[in-house]
Amino acid sequence: MLSSSIKQALRRISPTQSARLHTSRTLFSPLTPLTCVKHPELKRSSVYKELQEEDVDYFRTVLSPNNILYHPQPETPEQSILAHHNVDWFNLYRGTSSLCLFPTSTDQVSRILRYCNDNQLAVVPQGGNTGVSGGAVPVFDEIIVNMSKMNTVRSFDSISGVAVVDAGVILEVLDQYLEPKGHMVPLDLGAKGSCQLGGNVSTNAGGLRLMRYGNLHGNVLGLEVVLADGTILHNLSTLRKDNTGYDLKQMFIGAEGTLGLVTGVALSTPRRAKSTHVAMVGLTSFEHVQKAFVMAKEDLSEILSAFEFWDHDSVGMVKQEMMQDTAYPIQGKHAFYALLETQGSRDEHDEEKLNDYLERLMESDIAADGVIAQDNTQVKTLWSWREKIPESMAKAGVAMTYDVSMEVPLLYKMVEDAKKHFGEKGLLGPGKLYSNLLGFGHVGDGNLHIMANVNNFGHKAQADMDEFVFKWAIKHNGSITAEHGVGISKVGYMNDCKSDIQLSLMRAIKTVLDPKGIMNPYKVIPEKSNKQ
Amino acid sequence: MLSSSIKQALRRISPTQSARLHTSRTLFSPLTPLTCVKHPELKRSSVYKELQEEDVDYFRTVLSPNNILYHPQPETPEQSILAHHNVDWFNLYRGTSSLCLFPTSTDQVSRILRYCNDNQLAVVPQGGNTGVSGGAVPVFDEIIVNMSKMNTVRSFDSISGVAVVDAGVILEVLDQYLEPKGHMVPLDLGAKGSCQLGGNVSTNAGGLRLMRYGNLHGNVLGLEVVLADGTILHNLSTLRKDNTGYDLKQMFIGAEGTLGLVTGVALSTPRRAKSTHVAMVGLTSFEHVQKAFVMAKEDLSEILSAFEFWDHDSVGMVKQEMMQDTAYPIQGKHAFYALLETQGSRDEHDEEKLNDYLERLMESDIAADGVIAQDNTQVKTLWSWREKIPESMAKAGVAMTYDVSMEVPLLYKMVEDAKKHFGEKGLLGPGKLYSNLLGFGHVGDGNLHIMANVNNFGHKAQADMDEFVFKWAIKHNGSITAEHGVGISKVGYMNDCKSDIQLSLMRAIKTVLDPKGIMNPYKVIPEKSNKQ
Repeated sequence: MLSSSIKQALRRISPTQSARLHTSRTLFSPLTPLTCVKHPELKRSSVYKELQEEDVDYFRTVLSPNNILYHPQPETPEQSILAHHNVDWFNLYRGTSSLCLFPTSTDQVSRILRYCNDNQLAVVPQGGNTGVSGGAVPVFDEIIVNMSKMNTVRSFDSISGVAVVDAGVILEVLDQYLEPKGHMVPLDLGAKGSCQLGGNVSTNAGGLRLMRYGNLHGNVLGLEVVLADGTILHNLSTLRKDNTGYDLKQMFIGAEGTLGLVTGVALSTPRRAKSTHVAMVGLTSFEHVQKAFVMAKEDLSEILSAFEFWDHDSVGMVKQEMMQDTAYPIQGKHAFYALLETQGSRDEHDEEKLNDYLERLMESDIAADGVIAQDNTQVKTLWSWREKIPESMAKAGVAMTYDVSMEVPLLYKMVEDAKKHFGEKGLLGPGKLYSNLLGFGHVGDGNLHIMANVNNFGHKAQADMDEFVFKWAIKHNGSITAEHGVGISKVGYMNDCKSDIQLSLMRAIKTVLDPKGIMNPYKVIPEKSNKQ
Repeated sequence: MLSSSIKQALRRISPTQSARLHTSRTLFSPLTPLTCVKHPELKRSSVYKELQEEDVDYFRTVLSPNNILYHPQPETPEQSILAHHNVDWFNLYRGTSSLCLFPTSTDQVSRILRYCNDNQLAVVPQGGNTGVSGGAVPVFDEIIVNMSKMNTVRSFDSISGVAVVDAGVILEVLDQYLEPKGHMVPLDLGAKGSCQLGGNVSTNAGGLRLMRYGNLHGNVLGLEVVLADGTILHNLSTLRKDNTGYDLKQMFIGAEGTLGLVTGVALSTPRRAKSTHVAMVGLTSFEHVQKAFVMAKEDLSEILSAFEFWDHDSVGMVKQEMMQDTAYPIQGKHAFYALLETQGSRDEHDEEKLNDYLERLMESDIAADGVIAQDNTQVKTLWSWREKIPESMAKAGVAMTYDVSMEVPLLYKMVEDAKKHFGEKGLLGPGKLYSNLLGFGHVGDGNLHIMANVNNFGHKAQADMDEFVFKWAIKHNGSITAEHGVGISKVGYMNDCKSDIQLSLMRAIKTVLDPKGIMNPYKVIPEKSNKQ
């Protein structure tokens, strides 16, 4: 039972209208510079053939007319019927492809890739195009193979909980399909309304509940992949345990479409939680955030499904841009806030565990204030304060976003050091080059998202911030991309963060699976550097 | 609350002495035939150099004398000081190596492999030598590199729960190290007292609680691996999320030492459960076993940590061989028994969930009788009835063991079909070629262990049973090895259960990582068959 003083601290917030952020596709921006202009170091490789009318004629024998978008010479880029497929979600990368293909079967994908491989035509696989590293759009004129029209749930087994789906099935669609069966997708991320399972697998998507449900290397049981030469690798095992030889599917998880094109996914799905509780607390230091996290693992253990944190500046940004009319549920100003979620099978048990945890948190002076959501609407509202941070930043101006991981104790030090670094140079603050530098993320995964608005946007401004963040992460044994992937955005830093032996193994695997290099070129693996 | 009639059904068993089965190393048997005699199709490859005195002299410059076992010409095999390292745990495979090396550092492993690679000397990595597929012992005269002396826990981070260990650390030793820190190894298997983490990783060990804690592809965060040419792949990341390029460590998980030698493991460890409950129920059909399993997932969800089943014959075997003086806790004769375990953080919550589940199971006539363990001794006793099955079979005679996975509804049909098949041929029963054919396993993972005693043991008797079991599994889209691995025992069936493209990709990866083929030859990947 909560003591009365703590009961007061855990005020019940009043219901308010709110919607969980379902990221929608950003409109094509004519301002988006061409990737090759922004990155003049990238040169179109002459090994790739330029698309000819005869090539399109071949694809017309494979696909019906409504599954081909072809627009060879648009007067302006935004007039192209392919505009949405050439530009990434963040409007940061733009290619100039004139052909986007929409296969409806694995066999069609196989015929497309075989032709491209035979004719040395470069290909970029595309799912929901919600990636934030420029991995799913062409750099130059690569043919786009979009998986949206392969969107069938092939099977679901209610005893094992294994779902087999086409790569183009949208995450949220699968989750809704599983809901009445009492199961759920073991993956949740902001883009769930648009992102596709094939893209999730190809980018090894992490998201909000990885700490509870594990990563895709553990949850994907089988894959169907079309290799670069059109060979179909039938590996859609639904077995939870299978040790017959090398686990080939693992290579394609997180390969960002550079080793083959994922067309089908067998996924282990857990039982859907019957009870969800969400609490938010205010904390005075990042030290306290960590203590609250360790205590949550102790007290909530098997029902803890998320532990998110953000800084005070993040609150101001969401309030200013998106939630002007909603009272922030925590009283007073605190350096940090944490949102923790439980998912379990028995409501009263979960509530008791959560109450006892919060009581301990208050009694040990770790948390200064806190609230518990009383119904589903409040759950969504509390989540909104966390989930609307990126969108609020994008509304406030041109926003740069980073996704790094490191030891938990160092997590927020990067933000502090960045503020100091750019502050001392007089570059940070209202009206200056950078503003609204803030940090938030998944404590449980050691995963920080650091964002900043950049005024008077130029490539150098982004490059300078990139350099600071990436070098800081590398220096502290962190990862320059925890979950977003390398794509085109971080390929220039791969020589700094991977050893020569790691890079040479990646190149060797690439050569085995895609000897002609047609699959998503220019990305993930860098050109050989001088050090090699 | 349990109703009184059900209370009666759930009798409390009385405490009895019992010990959880910790598999110990079987003594070397002089009867064990040489692998190359048993499998005449295996020929020593002439590409490998035969060990010379000068080679041993080199290793003497790398290792101290007490870390080298060298016995070139023993008068009889059992006199060799290497006997225990040449024979596998089940006394099924025996090689004739005259050299076993015990490196104490990664650098030593690197120098050993570089020399072997330069001189075309074949190598077999060996951990606790508890494998059951002959993967960890030489087939001919391969040099054994035993990891027992690299056995230090390198670090543990209490915030993230990540442990970094030498490959030779014994599973149970790590678990005991983690216990006072409130964490546990997310892996439990019969051989825990002897098996080593490096071997667990190399065989992708599954075990009893995979359904709860996930597999090693999800739980291993980083690996340190010495490649065939002695290159050290430093990939001991402790990051929970890291998407910088291909996830190279995945290739070595389950590769059975054929791609490199794992020397260090970074493992994500969950909070240790504060409460463990175990129940055993009797069921009239395998249909009911499945229903009980689905209901357990519904009611126990996040706290369900194991769901094991066995048939009636298994009980008789354990009773006869190992637990004569212990009353079987379930009354009456039932076709099947299931053991289910919960692990959670709050004892009274877990107990309530388990009681309610069992009540529902009784009321819906799924279970006919059942018991709940009242203390830790009873927990161990209930587990013993499941865990002592393999050892009882081994005591009863020469025992063959299989490890297959398939769709859960088919799981026991394999045993029924095997009984019918060999029964109709007059080969099954007391005094006949096969006796005591029985089945048990991990329902949650679709993983069946089928065992039989074979009287008048001969290679053909084993080969006939192999053929029936493996062909049945392949025909029903199952796996011929769920968790035990291919090793030498199943390599002859790989052409039947893997496609040409899968095998050619495995060979290509092998060629990239071990171009001279010195790492654990003859195993996992078969010679090219005629079909290729």
